[in-house]
Amino acid sequence: MSILIKNVLLNGKERDIRIEGRQIVEISESSGAAVGGGARSAEAEYVIDGCGKAAIPSLFNAHTHAAMTLFRGFADDMPLDKWLKERIWPMEALLTEDDVYWGARLACLEMIKTGTTFFNDMYWHWRGTARAVAESGIRAAISAVFIDRFDEEIAREQMRRSRQMLSEYAEFSSDGRIIFTLGPHAVYTVSEESLCWIRDFSQKNDLIVHIHLSETAWEVEECMRRYGRRPVEFLESIDFLNERVVAAHCIAVSKKEIGILRDKGVKIAHNPSSNMKLASGVMPYEEMKRAGMRGNILLGTDGCASNNNLDMFEEMKIASLLQKSHRKDPTAMPAHEVFEMATVNAARAFNFNAGEIAVGKLADILLVDLSCECFVPNHNLISNIVFSANGNCVDTVICDGNILMHERRVEDEYRIKEKVKEVSERLVSALNR
Amino acid sequence: MSILIKNVLLNGKERDIRIEGRQIVEISESSGAAVGGGARSAEAEYVIDGCGKAAIPSLFNAHTHAAMTLFRGFADDMPLDKWLKERIWPMEALLTEDDVYWGARLACLEMIKTGTTFFNDMYWHWRGTARAVAESGIRAAISAVFIDRFDEEIAREQMRRSRQMLSEYAEFSSDGRIIFTLGPHAVYTVSEESLCWIRDFSQKNDLIVHIHLSETAWEVEECMRRYGRRPVEFLESIDFLNERVVAAHCIAVSKKEIGILRDKGVKIAHNPSSNMKLASGVMPYEEMKRAGMRGNILLGTDGCASNNNLDMFEEMKIASLLQKSHRKDPTAMPAHEVFEMATVNAARAFNFNAGEIAVGKLADILLVDLSCECFVPNHNLISNIVFSANGNCVDTVICDGNILMHERRVEDEYRIKEKVKEVSERLVSALNR
Repeated sequence: MSILIKNVLLNGKERDIRIEGRQIVEISESSGAAVGGGARSAEAEYVIDGCGKAAIPSLFNAHTHAAMTLFRGFADDMPLDKWLKERIWPMEALLTEDDVYWGARLACLEMIKTGTTFFNDMYWHWRGTARAVAESGIRAAISAVFIDRFDEEIAREQMRRSRQMLSEYAEFSSDGRIIFTLGPHAVYTVSEESLCWIRDFSQKNDLIVHIHLSETAWEVEECMRRYGRRPVEFLESIDFLNERVVAAHCIAVSKKEIGILRDKGVKIAHNPSSNMKLASGVMPYEEMKRAGMRGNILLGTDGCASNNNLDMFEEMKIASLLQKSHRKDPTAMPAHEVFEMATVNAARAFNFNAGEIAVGKLADILLVDLSCECFVPNHNLISNIVFSANGNCVDTVICDGNILMHERRVEDEYRIKEKVKEVSERLVSALNR
Repeated sequence: MSILIKNVLLNGKERDIRIEGRQIVEISESSGAAVGGGARSAEAEYVIDGCGKAAIPSLFNAHTHAAMTLFRGFADDMPLDKWLKERIWPMEALLTEDDVYWGARLACLEMIKTGTTFFNDMYWHWRGTARAVAESGIRAAISAVFIDRFDEEIAREQMRRSRQMLSEYAEFSSDGRIIFTLGPHAVYTVSEESLCWIRDFSQKNDLIVHIHLSETAWEVEECMRRYGRRPVEFLESIDFLNERVVAAHCIAVSKKEIGILRDKGVKIAHNPSSNMKLASGVMPYEEMKRAGMRGNILLGTDGCASNNNLDMFEEMKIASLLQKSHRKDPTAMPAHEVFEMATVNAARAFNFNAGEIAVGKLADILLVDLSCECFVPNHNLISNIVFSANGNCVDTVICDGNILMHERRVEDEYRIKEKVKEVSERLVSALNR
C-alpha cells in the first residue's frame, strides 16, 4: 500500500509524509495543494489530509496483560492479597483460549483508539492473544506465563510448552509484527532451575525475556528468605540478566541493584498507574537516570485489572506527575523524557526500526487532532501530548504501513465490544455459581 | 424547556428522566418505546435517546483559574519560583479583560466537553470570566483575586473593588448560575487587616470565601515567621474560618489544624494533579476522613498552567491513585468516595440543589457513552468512571435544564478555539518583544 499524508505538522513544520509498503520513504515540504486537488495525490493509493493534525510516532506499551480487559473494574480498592485470591485468580481459572482472544481483541482495539501500536504481553493461552494481534494489525511481543511454583513436574511441562510455542509462533508472525518472548513470571513463582533453563533457552534462540522484578518489598523479603539475596542480585548470581531482559516494575531496587541493571543493559518497564493503584511503591527513576539508564527505561500500563485502561497518553502524564510528587521536584521526569520512554526507548528495546518519524523507519504513525481543546493553545506540542491530551485526541493510526484507524473509526469495533460483554457476563455468572 | 431522556441507565436500571424548566420532575421505569415512536415523546419538546448510555450527575470543579487555559503548556517541568516569576506572572501582566473572557470561554468549552458544569474560580478581570460563564450556560462561583501584598493603599483599592463587584455581579447572575465569592489569595499575600475585612464583609453579605491555604511547607514557614502560628491556626485566631470558607490545597496541615478545619466546617478543595506537578506535597485525605471531614472534601483541577487540562474524570483517577500510593494502601480513597467529592460534596458546599439525579434536583446531568471501550465490560460503572474513563466518554451535557452538548457537539466551539489561538499568539509575541 502507498500512503501520502499531506500538510501535516511534523516537528513544528508542515510536511508531506510518503509511505510505501511498511516504510516511510519520503518527508518533504508540504506542496500545499488541497487533498485530491494536486498532481501528487495520484502517486499514492491513499491520500490523508493532515491539515490541523500533527504526526507523532505511535506509542509502545512495554508491559501489559492484554486480555485482562475482561476484568476492567471487576476488583478495585482492595488489598493485593484479597484482590488476587478472591477476584483475579478465580476468574483466570475459568478462562478459555477463546476468552483470551476476545479480551485481547478489545485490548488491541482500545490501544489502536488511544494511539498505541505495540504491546509487550505476558498471559495465559498465548495463542488467543497472538490471533487477536495478527487480526488487529498492531505489533506485540507475546509470552506465555511461565510459572512452576517450585514444582519439578510443572517446570518440565512449562519447558515443553515453551519449546512448543517457539515452534508454533511462526504461524502468527509471518510479517514480523509479532515477536515471541519468554515470560518467567517472577523470582517468587519460578524456580532457580527453571530460570537457568530460560536463560539458556533465550540465549540459544535469541529471545527477549519478560519478567516481573522487584515489584514489592514483600518480593525482596521473600527472595532474601529463599536465596539470601535481593532479587536483582540473585538473578545476577545465576547470570540471568542481559540486554535481552525486559523487567517490569523494578520498584524495590537498591543502589547496587540499579548499578547491576545498568551494567547488564536490562530494559525496565515502568507502570506508574498500576504501582499507585496497588500501592506497590515508586520506581526510582531519577536514580536510574543518574546511573545512566535513561535510554533503557520504557513505559507500560500493566493490565486493565490494575489501571484500569490501556491509554498510554494518560500513563505518560501519570508517570511524570508521580516522579515530581515523589521526588518533591517539579523538574523530575520532564515531558520529553517520558515521551521517549513511550516511543524511541521501547522501539530500540524490542528491535523495531520505529519510535520516530524519519525516512527509512517503519510507518508506525499517529495523527493527533490539533482541534481538540487539549491542544489549544499549542505553545508546546510535547507538553500538550504528555500533560493535556488523552488517547481520544488520536484521529488516525498507521502501523506497519496500514491504516488501522481513520477519523476514529476502527474495523469491527462494535462486534468486538458486544462479544466481550457476552464473555465477561458468562465469566461472572460462572464465578457466582 | 422540557426534555425527556428515554431508556437511559440510571443506578443500574433503565429509566426515563423528565426535565421541566431547570428541574428533574420525574424518573420512571422506561416505557421501552423507541425515540419518536411512543406517545410520551409528544409530551416533551426535546426527546433524547438514552439507549446505550448512563446518566450520572455532572461534575463540579472546586478550584481553578479558568482563563489560565491560555497558558496551557507554556511552562512545565520548572521549579515553582522560576515558573511563576519567569513565565506565569509576566504573561498575566499582559492580560486584558477580553483575553480573560476568551481563556474562560475555552475553559467552559473544555469543561462542557469533559462533563463539568460548575467551577469555582479565582482570577484577574473577573468580568471576563463571568461573561464567558453566562454565555456558555454552565455554573460558576467567581471571585476576583484579592492581593494587597501588605500594602495599605492596595488593600483599600481591593476592598473598593470587592464592594463594586458585589454591586455589579447581579447583571451576570440573574438566573442563579453564577455566584459571587471573595478570593483572598493566601495568607502570605493578603494582610491580616484585609483578611479581617473579608471575614466581616463575607458574613454581612453571606458570601463564600475562596482562599489558597497551606499549599506548601514554605507557606507554613512564612506564616510562622510573620504571625508565629501555622496558617490554619492563624486564620482561626482571627476568627476567619467557618462553613462558608473553601480552602484550596490544605497539604501542609497538622493534626491539630485538621481538627480546626473540621470543627469550623471549612470545605477543602483537593487538587492532586497540580500538587503533583508542582511537587507541593500530598493532601492528608485519610487523616481528614478519619477526623470526620469526608463530606467536606471537594475536588478541583487547579488552572491549566499546572495540570494541564480541566478533565475532572482524569482528576478523579489521579486523586485516588495518589492517596493509594502515598498511604501505601490500595484501599485508600475508593472510587465512590472520589466520585462524591466531584459531585454531591461540592453541590452541598456551593449551595446548589444538584450533585445527584433525583426528582426535585436541578437538571445537571451527563449521559456517558457506554459503547466507549473504557466502559467495556461494565462490571462496575463507578469504577469505570473513576479509573477507566476520561472526559471524552461524555456524549450529552445538560445544565440548568439546558442541553449544552449533544453527541459531543457544542455551540461555537470552532470560533472559540480559533480566537484563543489568536489571543495566545499575541500574548507570546508581546512577551518576547
